[in-house]
Amino acid sequence: MSPEALKNALQNLLAPHELLDDADAQALFIDQRRRYHSQNAIALMPDSVAGVQKIMRFCHENRIPVTPQGGNTGLVGGSVAQGGVLLNLSRLNQIRRINLPDNAITVEAGCVLAQVQKAAAEASRLFPLSLASEGSCQIGGNIACNAGGLNVLRYGTMRDLVLGLEVVLADGTLVSHLETLHKNTTGYEIKHLFIGSEGTLGIITAATLKLFPQLRSIATAWVGVENINQAIELLISVRNAFAERLISCELVSRFALDLSSRFSQISQPIDAEWHILIELSDSLPDIPLDEYLGEHLYHHGFHHTVLAQSEQQRQDLWTLRENISAAQKGLGVSIKHDIAMPIERVTEFIQQCGQALNTAFPQIQIVVFGHLGDGSLHYNTFLPDVLDNRVYESENAVNQIVYQHVLACGGTIAAEHGIGSLKAYHLNSVRLPAEIALMQAIKAQLDPHGILNPNVLFPKEN
Amino acid sequence: MSPEALKNALQNLLAPHELLDDADAQALFIDQRRRYHSQNAIALMPDSVAGVQKIMRFCHENRIPVTPQGGNTGLVGGSVAQGGVLLNLSRLNQIRRINLPDNAITVEAGCVLAQVQKAAAEASRLFPLSLASEGSCQIGGNIACNAGGLNVLRYGTMRDLVLGLEVVLADGTLVSHLETLHKNTTGYEIKHLFIGSEGTLGIITAATLKLFPQLRSIATAWVGVENINQAIELLISVRNAFAERLISCELVSRFALDLSSRFSQISQPIDAEWHILIELSDSLPDIPLDEYLGEHLYHHGFHHTVLAQSEQQRQDLWTLRENISAAQKGLGVSIKHDIAMPIERVTEFIQQCGQALNTAFPQIQIVVFGHLGDGSLHYNTFLPDVLDNRVYESENAVNQIVYQHVLACGGTIAAEHGIGSLKAYHLNSVRLPAEIALMQAIKAQLDPHGILNPNVLFPKEN
Repeated sequence: MSPEALKNALQNLLAPHELLDDADAQALFIDQRRRYHSQNAIALMPDSVAGVQKIMRFCHENRIPVTPQGGNTGLVGGSVAQGGVLLNLSRLNQIRRINLPDNAITVEAGCVLAQVQKAAAEASRLFPLSLASEGSCQIGGNIACNAGGLNVLRYGTMRDLVLGLEVVLADGTLVSHLETLHKNTTGYEIKHLFIGSEGTLGIITAATLKLFPQLRSIATAWVGVENINQAIELLISVRNAFAERLISCELVSRFALDLSSRFSQISQPIDAEWHILIELSDSLPDIPLDEYLGEHLYHHGFHHTVLAQSEQQRQDLWTLRENISAAQKGLGVSIKHDIAMPIERVTEFIQQCGQALNTAFPQIQIVVFGHLGDGSLHYNTFLPDVLDNRVYESENAVNQIVYQHVLACGGTIAAEHGIGSLKAYHLNSVRLPAEIALMQAIKAQLDPHGILNPNVLFPKEN
Repeated sequence: MSPEALKNALQNLLAPHELLDDADAQALFIDQRRRYHSQNAIALMPDSVAGVQKIMRFCHENRIPVTPQGGNTGLVGGSVAQGGVLLNLSRLNQIRRINLPDNAITVEAGCVLAQVQKAAAEASRLFPLSLASEGSCQIGGNIACNAGGLNVLRYGTMRDLVLGLEVVLADGTLVSHLETLHKNTTGYEIKHLFIGSEGTLGIITAATLKLFPQLRSIATAWVGVENINQAIELLISVRNAFAERLISCELVSRFALDLSSRFSQISQPIDAEWHILIELSDSLPDIPLDEYLGEHLYHHGFHHTVLAQSEQQRQDLWTLRENISAAQKGLGVSIKHDIAMPIERVTEFIQQCGQALNTAFPQIQIVVFGHLGDGSLHYNTFLPDVLDNRVYESENAVNQIVYQHVLACGGTIAAEHGIGSLKAYHLNSVRLPAEIALMQAIKAQLDPHGILNPNVLFPKEN
């Protein structure tokens, strides 16, 4: 079908406002990192689930590729259309209901994460997923990419927060399981196939998510240690003592803190090689967590410790952590890695991968920080002697070294951003042939014409 | 292949002790409830993963049905062989390792649940899955059936406790992901297909499971309420105040308590229509949880409360709860239901289903108890005017009424025991045609000859 014929057909199918004009479409056609551009696509923004079904039925019958998109905050080129339809879910943005006996909220895919956090807070509950992009990323995208973020240590990834899904299949069939069933074993668990499938198996239109009690006491500490083994000992000891109260355990290298401290104009709390930001919380009010935490750290030999004495000081500590991403931009274009590994092997990885990169690229600068509590690291590399986008010419060589060390440590090359198109050709390095064959059989069953997000996970070779 | 030829071939393939003789095999051939019997099968008990691979390769090539079996404690006829091989995993019973930085334990499928709990405790950690059959059920079966039990409210079902799996596929291929990755999004999540698949997709040989900090403070209360709405209000209020400290919230009807109290020779703690057993715990020692809980209950109007003042009293309260299953045997043969529904609809279900059953069977006695905290109920019915096994003649009629009400309340007919062969013909009442087609496509890809546990989930029609 020619682009004109497709446009005409869609105009007949949908309400006028559901087709975006060129100006509105342009913002959706370029990705967050400005690396990927949609081309020859028509942007649709339906305002009902029935509209999504209508679009899918039409595209299925006519073999039109459909690239689903939420808040367009992805980092791996996962919602970029090459022809066909870019299906943006932003208008499915209703909080459908809150169910307090089951501690659950049912929301549509286009709800912004912060909107869901707010709706939960208004019901005196917590929705714990928390990411840098929470002000613009959407729930459908969070589910499709199995988003992680700051609180995974305590609350798990998005996968762990989903009780039920409503999905429109490639042929327009609606599969809806939004009931709050906390136990259910009736055949294979299909929900978990859609979670993390990056829009290749169906269009998620709504989800029932878990809520939690609000947190009413908090304590935050910044701890300096000499090496990562000490950081891991600290994690073990605090986690074992305080259990679920430990909601964050963030790792920051000396170099990352230097950058962020200058950028943020906040002085460094402690002079050390490695830094840990720990936060404890409790659902009960007036629990003296800072006292408990201070005593625990002292008795376990962690003497280089600053405990936040005020909300301002707490925010300053978090600003130091959160500004690392912005501060590192002063180093130039970065080659980023979204990796995770068993916590027991983080030390080995950082030492050996750092050595290998320094040997291959003597000028390389490595900014290491991340979520030690769940073994995932932001491992960003800079080549200060290379100008701007020419850095990308070394991307494959840098990736090769990093991935080799990640895999040798039993790790993953895609922790919380997904595979997208950026890493599609690495999928067979982390999955066995039998697994990839199974994935393709699942794909073929649910999307026999291969119309759903054809540029990610299994792009055609040619 | 004739039974004799099969036996000869297996004798050539395996060590002599891996084939059980008739006497040893008989105990594995009859199920826990003594309703189902394996027939014309050869019982194998390999002592290595390589042995499992060898068996599967042979059976795949020769189209021999393979029924996997763990502790043989299932209640739905899920490990009963009709011909072919009964593959018992009991000899794969090693705790492979404990990884403290990642709070994880790697165990083989044949480890008994209590053995894993004990290994965790010896490392000063908690493995929280807890079931009535924990002294004999095995981890492989727990995973294959997505076991639930007493602590799901706090720790989730077995699905939530699995970090990684090692599986032998139908053709003998080994797929092993035992690394402790807390974040990983690299294509479709295949692990969750095997969990809850009841042995139809592969033979689980080992798993890496999550560990948790031990619990060092505890408080237990028995609360009497007038109706289930009050019980749900109690759950909401305690869960919101105490968050993860709430590990159990069990519901007991007046009739169930009457039975158990007489059976246990323990007096009833409170006179009320409905009873709730609440337990709080904390990883920190010396937290005055009983004081907190007592105050909370009093301030929220729950005055019919007994707080356990000693470990003996705590055990007595739990004995009253746990002896219900044994006590009800005095009523005769039961038709059991393993159901779950949204907590918000438990009241409606109990009222309406009870009325419908009483109308259809005026003599019926209903024993209601279960895990209110996660919406799953043991809903056991007795027909005192019917003798012994003739009760089963009414099973379909009773099931029809119960399932109709469960489904009308958005519930499930299989909460934590699985579908097995008992409920296979009900699968299409809880799953859409598109879902069943997907399940069958997954099955066909992983087990093209349909040799794995052919009597459960999708038994052949004839």
